[in-house]
Amino acid sequence: MKFTASSADLLEALNTVKGAVPSKSTMPILECILFERDGDTLRLSATDLEISIIQTVPVQFEKNGTPESTPIAVPAQRLIDTLRALPDLPIEFAADSDFEIRMDTDQGHYKMVGHDGSDYPELPELEEQHEINVEGGLLGRSIDKTAFAVSQDALRPAMMGVYFQVSEEETSVVATDGHRLVKLTLPELRADTSADFIVPEKATKLAGRIVEDDEICTVRVDDSHVSFEFGESRVLARLIDETYPNYQSVIPDGNDRNLVVNREDMLNAVKRVGLYSSSMTNQIRLDITADTVTISAEDVERSSEAEETIHCDYDNEPMEIGFNSEYLTEVLSNVECDEVVFELSSPNRAGIVLPREGADDEDILMLIMPVMLNTYA
Amino acid sequence: MKFTASSADLLEALNTVKGAVPSKSTMPILECILFERDGDTLRLSATDLEISIIQTVPVQFEKNGTPESTPIAVPAQRLIDTLRALPDLPIEFAADSDFEIRMDTDQGHYKMVGHDGSDYPELPELEEQHEINVEGGLLGRSIDKTAFAVSQDALRPAMMGVYFQVSEEETSVVATDGHRLVKLTLPELRADTSADFIVPEKATKLAGRIVEDDEICTVRVDDSHVSFEFGESRVLARLIDETYPNYQSVIPDGNDRNLVVNREDMLNAVKRVGLYSSSMTNQIRLDITADTVTISAEDVERSSEAEETIHCDYDNEPMEIGFNSEYLTEVLSNVECDEVVFELSSPNRAGIVLPREGADDEDILMLIMPVMLNTYA
Repeated sequence: MKFTASSADLLEALNTVKGAVPSKSTMPILECILFERDGDTLRLSATDLEISIIQTVPVQFEKNGTPESTPIAVPAQRLIDTLRALPDLPIEFAADSDFEIRMDTDQGHYKMVGHDGSDYPELPELEEQHEINVEGGLLGRSIDKTAFAVSQDALRPAMMGVYFQVSEEETSVVATDGHRLVKLTLPELRADTSADFIVPEKATKLAGRIVEDDEICTVRVDDSHVSFEFGESRVLARLIDETYPNYQSVIPDGNDRNLVVNREDMLNAVKRVGLYSSSMTNQIRLDITADTVTISAEDVERSSEAEETIHCDYDNEPMEIGFNSEYLTEVLSNVECDEVVFELSSPNRAGIVLPREGADDEDILMLIMPVMLNTYA
Repeated sequence: MKFTASSADLLEALNTVKGAVPSKSTMPILECILFERDGDTLRLSATDLEISIIQTVPVQFEKNGTPESTPIAVPAQRLIDTLRALPDLPIEFAADSDFEIRMDTDQGHYKMVGHDGSDYPELPELEEQHEINVEGGLLGRSIDKTAFAVSQDALRPAMMGVYFQVSEEETSVVATDGHRLVKLTLPELRADTSADFIVPEKATKLAGRIVEDDEICTVRVDDSHVSFEFGESRVLARLIDETYPNYQSVIPDGNDRNLVVNREDMLNAVKRVGLYSSSMTNQIRLDITADTVTISAEDVERSSEAEETIHCDYDNEPMEIGFNSEYLTEVLSNVECDEVVFELSSPNRAGIVLPREGADDEDILMLIMPVMLNTYA
């Protein structure tokens, strides 16, 4: 394989695919990026066997070269480090049949040894796909707003991904770790046939990093894989082959106590008071009355305590409820609005957090589980 | 102790002193900051027993309080985290005789338990001091330009600090780790009596972080300690009680081969080629001729090699010399000028690196030891 390319273009493409290169692997070839000729463009691929990224980049192939060049796997880190230290200039890339790679610029040359591209693991092909077209900005926001709630617990693999429920009427995007849950409903996102699938967190993050707001992304799904396609790039991931828990059953619908607070006031008070809670439980207490919420915490071990009071608007009997301050902080950080509504029922039942006024094209619901306050014992 | 202060002022002062708080310590009280009343100001102190920072901050002490308040040691991290999460507002601070600390703002209150201030280690007092006044900018630059060359090798404790040689005529600031050396000569910085002392690297870095360009800093030294005093802040450090190696003897003065190169071209070429050198030795080779320097490296283990050629102006017989690419990169990164001069003599003797034209008020000399090239064997 022999071609000339702009070092900056090549670097940009490599920076996109390197997201899938495992930092350490028992298979050295996975620390490489596969270079393949695809007609008049160069196709770069990287995979960690679960998630793959493929990106095409325009290069000038040698005029007399055969269109069928031998694919080659190029050590990712060293190539990227070299290009990063170069100004933008034309770079001549040549790989010979012994997989020796030589790069030439006006300033000098660099040689390294790659691997036979035909030894690189084959990337999966999708079969009998569902196809959904989605505006990039919407996909990016759906990922941003849900990924924080994904479980890190390998004992509950289904919850280690973001759950997409696509149907003819609307799409739901859900993430939960059992302590909090986010559900985003996107009425404008529909498909011809319905499909439910769980995308591993890492794949959603990589897709979220590549996506551009005003680009259309095509999402293809078959029984085992999902592919997010954006212009020149493609993120391909194995689906989590598990049944997602029936999250609908935990979303209460009879919560009749409504608490309205300024989101930022509440968030900052929870953050500060949380510093004084037990580092084991992060437990904070909300004492809710008609017009004030008192947020308090104590840590017997370190003899510390804190209390703050903020204004609120509450329509029911005074109540006391406990939350994990970290989960509450994350939930409040991930709603975009000035005022949030807490829909509560009792101190031992899930609370719902909603933006007071949502954007028209999306509908977000967060759920947070309370914690038992010591005083209930 | 009881006072009112602006939370932002207090936070700023705490951020200065926290540099001396050890992140982990077998003495829990060292993870605190000592609060002492000093007339009408509050004095904050932190120490890791080697290095201390003291800062005063204006606060309003309680009118009816006794001027002799009991000092208290306040847990540093939690106090800083709390203040960082607060907007700028007045904060009322009160510590009682059981060392319980209570902070009150309009929004709420926070309680924690401190330690008896009289248990806090006493900070050293300097005796029979030398006193040197130095413009802050100059001190800051001296530290910036030398600290990178300080040795990290605990077996050579003398070299783990920056060496100051102050005399009636001039001051030298020196750092070396045996592979490279920096010597900064400051003719405008003089003292009434001469003094030589080694300041631990961490203390120079803390002082460099606090110093402000247009402020006069007073440096006081006695036999065992140094103190850098800037306005409201003071950094106090135990000197390294060792004899600094006779570095003058390693600076060659008969180097008659002069190589002039563009600093940035050389730096970038060394960085890139260095990526292809052996990760054990980082060895690169310079092939110097009258108008070109060819920089090359190879790593047999990874079968990689690279070569770049840059323009130069050289006045002697062609020569070949080896350097550690990381040391050469650091040396070239720490000279401020467009062109550098390498004064060389032979491939196995120290090279000198100088800026081609230096600033009037400072005179910097760097020395770099060559490495044996494999071909010499």
